[in-house]
Amino acid sequence: MDEVTFVILGATGDLTARKIIPAIYHLVERKKIQNFVIVGAARKKKKISTILNASKKFVKKGKDSVWNKLEKHASYVQLDFYNEDHYQNLQDELHRLEHKFKLPGKRIFYLATLSNHFETITHNLKKYDDKKHTKSWPRVVYEKPFGHDLKSAKVLNRHISRLFHQDHIYRIDHYLGKESVENISIVRFTNRVLEPIWNAKHIESVQIIMNESIGIEGRGSFYDKYGAIKDVVQNHMLQLLALVAMEPPKRLFGKYMQDAKVAILKRTYVESVLLGQYNGYTREPGVKKGSKTETFATLKLSLHTKRWKGVPFFFKTGKFLKSKETRIDVKFKEVKCLMLNNCPTDTNFLTIRIQPNEGITLDVHSKVPGEKSKITTVPLDFSQQSVTAPETPEAYETLLGDVIEGNQSTFVRHDEIEASWKITDAIRKGKVYHYRRGSNGPLQLQKWSKRHKIQWRA
Amino acid sequence: MDEVTFVILGATGDLTARKIIPAIYHLVERKKIQNFVIVGAARKKKKISTILNASKKFVKKGKDSVWNKLEKHASYVQLDFYNEDHYQNLQDELHRLEHKFKLPGKRIFYLATLSNHFETITHNLKKYDDKKHTKSWPRVVYEKPFGHDLKSAKVLNRHISRLFHQDHIYRIDHYLGKESVENISIVRFTNRVLEPIWNAKHIESVQIIMNESIGIEGRGSFYDKYGAIKDVVQNHMLQLLALVAMEPPKRLFGKYMQDAKVAILKRTYVESVLLGQYNGYTREPGVKKGSKTETFATLKLSLHTKRWKGVPFFFKTGKFLKSKETRIDVKFKEVKCLMLNNCPTDTNFLTIRIQPNEGITLDVHSKVPGEKSKITTVPLDFSQQSVTAPETPEAYETLLGDVIEGNQSTFVRHDEIEASWKITDAIRKGKVYHYRRGSNGPLQLQKWSKRHKIQWRA
Repeated sequence: MDEVTFVILGATGDLTARKIIPAIYHLVERKKIQNFVIVGAARKKKKISTILNASKKFVKKGKDSVWNKLEKHASYVQLDFYNEDHYQNLQDELHRLEHKFKLPGKRIFYLATLSNHFETITHNLKKYDDKKHTKSWPRVVYEKPFGHDLKSAKVLNRHISRLFHQDHIYRIDHYLGKESVENISIVRFTNRVLEPIWNAKHIESVQIIMNESIGIEGRGSFYDKYGAIKDVVQNHMLQLLALVAMEPPKRLFGKYMQDAKVAILKRTYVESVLLGQYNGYTREPGVKKGSKTETFATLKLSLHTKRWKGVPFFFKTGKFLKSKETRIDVKFKEVKCLMLNNCPTDTNFLTIRIQPNEGITLDVHSKVPGEKSKITTVPLDFSQQSVTAPETPEAYETLLGDVIEGNQSTFVRHDEIEASWKITDAIRKGKVYHYRRGSNGPLQLQKWSKRHKIQWRA
Repeated sequence: MDEVTFVILGATGDLTARKIIPAIYHLVERKKIQNFVIVGAARKKKKISTILNASKKFVKKGKDSVWNKLEKHASYVQLDFYNEDHYQNLQDELHRLEHKFKLPGKRIFYLATLSNHFETITHNLKKYDDKKHTKSWPRVVYEKPFGHDLKSAKVLNRHISRLFHQDHIYRIDHYLGKESVENISIVRFTNRVLEPIWNAKHIESVQIIMNESIGIEGRGSFYDKYGAIKDVVQNHMLQLLALVAMEPPKRLFGKYMQDAKVAILKRTYVESVLLGQYNGYTREPGVKKGSKTETFATLKLSLHTKRWKGVPFFFKTGKFLKSKETRIDVKFKEVKCLMLNNCPTDTNFLTIRIQPNEGITLDVHSKVPGEKSKITTVPLDFSQQSVTAPETPEAYETLLGDVIEGNQSTFVRHDEIEASWKITDAIRKGKVYHYRRGSNGPLQLQKWSKRHKIQWRA
């Protein structure tokens, strides 16, 4: 069990309320941490109790005893990221609390801010953090997005790596903390029925879907600068691609995983793209008039390795679509048909559902009972819910736990970030088509799919 | 829709009541046959209504209207298999009924008798059947067992093949009429996720289990002459092996399937055997005092083909065992473990359940939610029940339907029968160990399994 000092920079933000505080709550409730303090810091004047209270609705069946403990061990410091004196105040408060609660000073600085502040904050944390820096403490956590293009990410990486050793730096992509995403490499590499057929000889295409049924939800001024490609393709979707497509790492752990992911990202190229924007987007608060920012994107990617020669990877993502789901569909090739007639009309699919209803389905062909030589597709299904205890951790709890344990497997290394930005920076955007809210995306999708011979799984 | 004349030789027997009449009932109820007569024949004096009534308890939710139709279209002829004159009586009755019901004389002779009568009956049927024999009619159906060893089967095959063309001859192994058994080759050959890994490179062993929880049920005088090996290994179990192990047939149909099955049976050898007899067996009625007949058998077989080089096939079957089930467990090899620790302790299994709860389960490894790098086995499961309409045909209905359609895919050809007897004739039986009723078999099984490195699936 651990003793930790949490410092949340950007403590008044949405992420803190929705994700970070609930994650700490659960770590405390489950006794994964024994002793701790939480210090929130942000520009506004605020009480820590207000911040904690704002989180209560995001914790199901929260216990008063745990919330009381959190409040007793928490504090707030008003801090302007650009005022160096304020970092000294933060220091003083950390000292005071670590002394009071007899904590060893294992500090986790969580930068829950926009990435344009990362450079300044990191600089000041380093300068004013007077704790003796050990081989692996303090730890600095950076929320996504990490930069807004390859150039900015490189500048940022260079800057922070001068201040902190790579082992201290944790770049978040919260998808990596999801159970079903952590499961991808387990399923790939521990199953004899899958490992040998995971290649171009047997796989026809890979489809990665990330549909949202909601819009930009008041995040107009942020979203309009990013759009779907920077918001989810560059990070979540390329991480999913990397996990599906990487060569076997030496070990399913830490640096070996990151080595394998970066290697495949460096061989990944966008071949074609179709962009869309939902009707009414430009009337959203914070969005520029006449904005061409995409809220929908579908991409065809190619991976220049022997394993994936000729196997297209397709991405599809968007806001305000008909359904909300994230999943990966691995489409296998046809078999030589030995039937007299009634050959199968579709192929096997392995579907990894990220959300909702996390799990795996392998669609196989089987006989229609009572009918001679007639084939149907039956789902061999495993639903995570069936084995998941109600207290299965959410992504942020898993990730904070990993930071505490110093496990970087579920974080994104500098070169992965850069390789991903390189892929998305190279996209030539072209026309942005409008689409109806609640639809499947722009009407042009059909033609685009036909041209690229992609049959999306129903 | 068809017009058929059913002739059941051995109409007073158990099989007629339990299986054959209910199968015809369902074909009529489902309107798979339009017009028909049933003529029962046996040595005893009997009324056809008695025979039909004896079947009623074996038809769930039988309808009076259908039973009435059956009775109107049925008749009984007393017939001593060894009295030639009686066959003339049968002829006369068939004539009369076919004339009365305006039937074209498409006759199916079903020999539901012991195989020692097959030769005489076939001879007389040929001699006294005055219907003009066409390319494919009449059809003659032989119940199993077909002979009692290679020699007797050969004599029988030679004899009947002189009288009827191979296309007229249907040797029953009712397992081939089971949905889940018919499904084996469909699952094997129409799925890209299985076809490429169905070989010695990826499969460690194949286990075929056929456990019965009941005993010999008054069949003592028959069973004692046969024993487990002749009763189920020579037929059902070797047919299952053939379907699992055969090379891809040119087509999943008829003669091509039989070609493929016979080819693998000709390369199949028994390496080791362990026999058992349940306690009290020798006190069963009809069993010889001091009988050494086995009621339990476990076998290790090897298949001398490239596909199965070094892959043992194991059989296990017995009466009065703990559970009642028939299933095939395909055990895949290990994967190279890339985990830091917690490597999987078992391997993938594909299980084909023949009964009960027909279906397929693929056991794969997946992450334990909430635990870092911990693996559990999850069943990707498909249960036939979930898609099976309540009226899914039972094996005998399927098989009779196949006879009517002239489809021999689900029947056993002369050379398959002979190849199977050759395999079982070569078994050197050795000691027969006693076992407790309701147990897993003789205690010696454990040692035998260890010696042959077989871990039965739990």
